[in-house]
Amino acid sequence: TLSSDVHTVTLIPGDGIGPEISSAVMKIFDAANAPIQWEERNVTAIQGTGGKWMIPLDAKESMDRNKMGLKGPLKTPIAAGHPSMNLLLRKTFDLYANVRPCVSIEGYKTPYTEVNLVTIRENTEGEYSGIEHVIVDGVVQSIKLITEDASRRIAEFAFEYARNNQRSTVTAVHKANIMRMSDGLFLKKCREVAEAYKDIKFNEMYLDTVCLNMVQDPTQFDVLVMPNLYGDILSDLCAGLIGGLGVTPSGNIGAHGVAIFESVHGTAPDIAGKDLANPTALLLSAVMMLNHLKLHEYAKKIQTACFDTIKAGKTMTKDLGGNSKCSEFTNEICQRIKDLE
Amino acid sequence: TLSSDVHTVTLIPGDGIGPEISSAVMKIFDAANAPIQWEERNVTAIQGTGGKWMIPLDAKESMDRNKMGLKGPLKTPIAAGHPSMNLLLRKTFDLYANVRPCVSIEGYKTPYTEVNLVTIRENTEGEYSGIEHVIVDGVVQSIKLITEDASRRIAEFAFEYARNNQRSTVTAVHKANIMRMSDGLFLKKCREVAEAYKDIKFNEMYLDTVCLNMVQDPTQFDVLVMPNLYGDILSDLCAGLIGGLGVTPSGNIGAHGVAIFESVHGTAPDIAGKDLANPTALLLSAVMMLNHLKLHEYAKKIQTACFDTIKAGKTMTKDLGGNSKCSEFTNEICQRIKDLE
Ligand SMILES: CC(C)[C@H](C(=O)O)[C@@H](O)C(=O)O
Ligand SMILES: CC(C)[C@H](C(=O)O)[C@@H](O)C(=O)O
Repeated sequence: TLSSDVHTVTLIPGDGIGPEISSAVMKIFDAANAPIQWEERNVTAIQGTGGKWMIPLDAKESMDRNKMGLKGPLKTPIAAGHPSMNLLLRKTFDLYANVRPCVSIEGYKTPYTEVNLVTIRENTEGEYSGIEHVIVDGVVQSIKLITEDASRRIAEFAFEYARNNQRSTVTAVHKANIMRMSDGLFLKKCREVAEAYKDIKFNEMYLDTVCLNMVQDPTQFDVLVMPNLYGDILSDLCAGLIGGLGVTPSGNIGAHGVAIFESVHGTAPDIAGKDLANPTALLLSAVMMLNHLKLHEYAKKIQTACFDTIKAGKTMTKDLGGNSKCSEFTNEICQRIKDLE
Repeated sequence: TLSSDVHTVTLIPGDGIGPEISSAVMKIFDAANAPIQWEERNVTAIQGTGGKWMIPLDAKESMDRNKMGLKGPLKTPIAAGHPSMNLLLRKTFDLYANVRPCVSIEGYKTPYTEVNLVTIRENTEGEYSGIEHVIVDGVVQSIKLITEDASRRIAEFAFEYARNNQRSTVTAVHKANIMRMSDGLFLKKCREVAEAYKDIKFNEMYLDTVCLNMVQDPTQFDVLVMPNLYGDILSDLCAGLIGGLGVTPSGNIGAHGVAIFESVHGTAPDIAGKDLANPTALLLSAVMMLNHLKLHEYAKKIQTACFDTIKAGKTMTKDLGGNSKCSEFTNEICQRIKDLE
C-alpha cells in the first residue's frame, strides 16, 4: 500500500464535457487512493477595473495557494476583447513551459506505432507577444519577441525534463536560417544550456525539416524544445500522430512550483451531459501531475489501468472506436486499478 | 502525334546530383518529343557593386527572356552574408507563389494513401521580411510583414489555380486568433477574393488544427493557401506524407508569366556522380511546368510513364526501395513513353 501527504489541487472542471470527464478523473483517483484533495473552482473570466479581463479572484487565490491545477476544456469566449482563457491562465500564472508527451497507445490504431516523444513549448513570448501595428494602410506588422531570459529558461527546463524523465536527446527546433536574430538568440541559449548537460545529447533542426521527418518517422525524436508558435504547431501535429487531442495529455509549468495540467481538446457541446465523453486526455494529464508531484506509483497504477483498458479494447468510448459510455470506461479503469492492488 | 511551338526554358542543373537528374529529365523529355529547348545556365551567386549578392547576369538575362526555368538543387552557400540561393531567386524574379502538389504515388508505400492536395505558399513577405532588431541587450524582435497587396495576390492565385486545375476547395491557413492584425489581414483578403469565386468552396482553419488533421486524415484537404512561414512548414510536412522531397515537385510562380520549377531536395553530395540519384522530383516539377505551359498531353504522357514505372516496382532507385541506377530508371520511363505512343 502506498501512502504520502495529501496534496490539494485546484480543479477547474471547465465547460461542455468538462464536468463529466472531471468526475471520471476524481472517481479514478479515488479508486487508486491517490493522495489528492480537489478544490473546485470556476474560471469564467471577469472584468476588473478599466475593463481588464481577469480570472475570478477565488480561482486565482486557490491556485496561488495550491500551486497545482487540473483543468478541463473551456469554451471559447465570444465577448469582444475577451482573451483566450488559455492565454489568460498562462499569463496570470507565468506558465512558461507547455509540455506534451506523445506516446503511441496500444490498441488505438493510427498510422504510426512506437511514437514516444515530448514537445516542450515556450509559452510566454515569441509570436504570441500580441504586439502588432498598421504601418500604413494595407501594411501590417506583427512582432515576434525573443528574449535571452525566456530562451534560457525554456532550454533549462527542457534539459532538466530530459534528465528527470530518463530521456536522452533534446532537439532545438528553429528557423534561425531565416530569423537569424530572434531564432538565433533562442538557439544560442539552447546551445549554451546544452553545455551544462553532458549526459543529454543535443541536436538542432529546422522546423520544416522536423515536420517532414516527423511524418516520415516520428520514432527518431525524443525531447523537442522550441519557441511559442512552433510549439503550438508541433504539439498538435504530434498529438495527431498518436490519435488526437482526446488522448494527449498536457502540462503548463511555471516558476515557483506552479503548474496547471489540462486536456487540450474542445468542450464537445454536442455530446456534453450524455455520458459519451472520453476522459483519457484529462486523466493522462492528471497522471502527468502525479508524476510532477513525484507520486510516481499512483501515476503508474492509473496509467497502466487506463492503457490496459484501451489495449483490451472491450470497453471504449465512441471516439476510441468502441460503444461504451464514459461511466463504463471509467468503471473499467477503476476495476483494473483495484485488480492491480 | 503532338505538335506545338517550341518553348525555350532556362535550365539550372544545380550542384551535387543536380547535373545527372537534369540529364535524366532532358532525356525523358526527348523521348516524349516535348517541344522544349533547354538553355543551360549556372547560378552561383556573384557579388555586385557594394558587395550585394546577385545571380549572374547571363542567368538573369536568360530567365528574363525565357520567363520559364527548371532548377535542380543548389548547395547552401557558406560565404558570410551570402543569401540562400532559393531566397535570392524568389526575390530576383518576384516569384510570389510557391506551389506544391502532394499526390500519393502508387507503389511507393507511406503511412498514407490517396493524399491529393496542393499547398500554395506566399513567397515574398511575412516572417521572411528579414527585418530584425535588438531592442535592448537580450531582447530581439523579428518583424512579420503582411500586406494587403501580397495577400490579395496569393489568394487570387490560389483560387485561379483551383479553378484551372479542377479543384473544389481552397482552405486559408492562419493564426488570426493570435496575430489578429497580420494574419487577420491575410484572412480578410482571402475572404474577399473567395466572394469572386462562387464555384470554389472556401474554408478557414487554424494552422495547428491543419497540422493535427493533416496527419490524421490528409484526404480531407484540397488546395491550401497560407503566409510564407506556414507554407514553408506545411509544404514540407505534406511532402513527407507522400514519401518526401525526392518525389515532390514544386513550382515558384511570379508575375508577368515568370516561373521556376524545381526539385526541393538537397544536393546529396554523397551519391553525386554515381548514377544513383532519383530524378523523380525534378521530373515531376518539369511536368508541372508543361502543365503550366498548357502542354497537358506531354505532361500526362511523362507523368504516366513515371508513375507506371514506380507502380511496376521493378526499376526503382535506392531511395524508392529498389536497386536500379538513375540511368536504368530513366531508360525505363523513356521506354514506357515510347510504348504509350
Ligand atoms: C486557443 C489558442 C490561443 C491556443 C494557442 O494558439 O496557443 C491553442 O492553440 C493552444 O495550443 O493552446
Ligand atoms: C532554404 C530555406 C531558405 C527555404 C525556406 O525556409 O524557405 C527552404 O526551407 C524552402 O522551403 O525553400
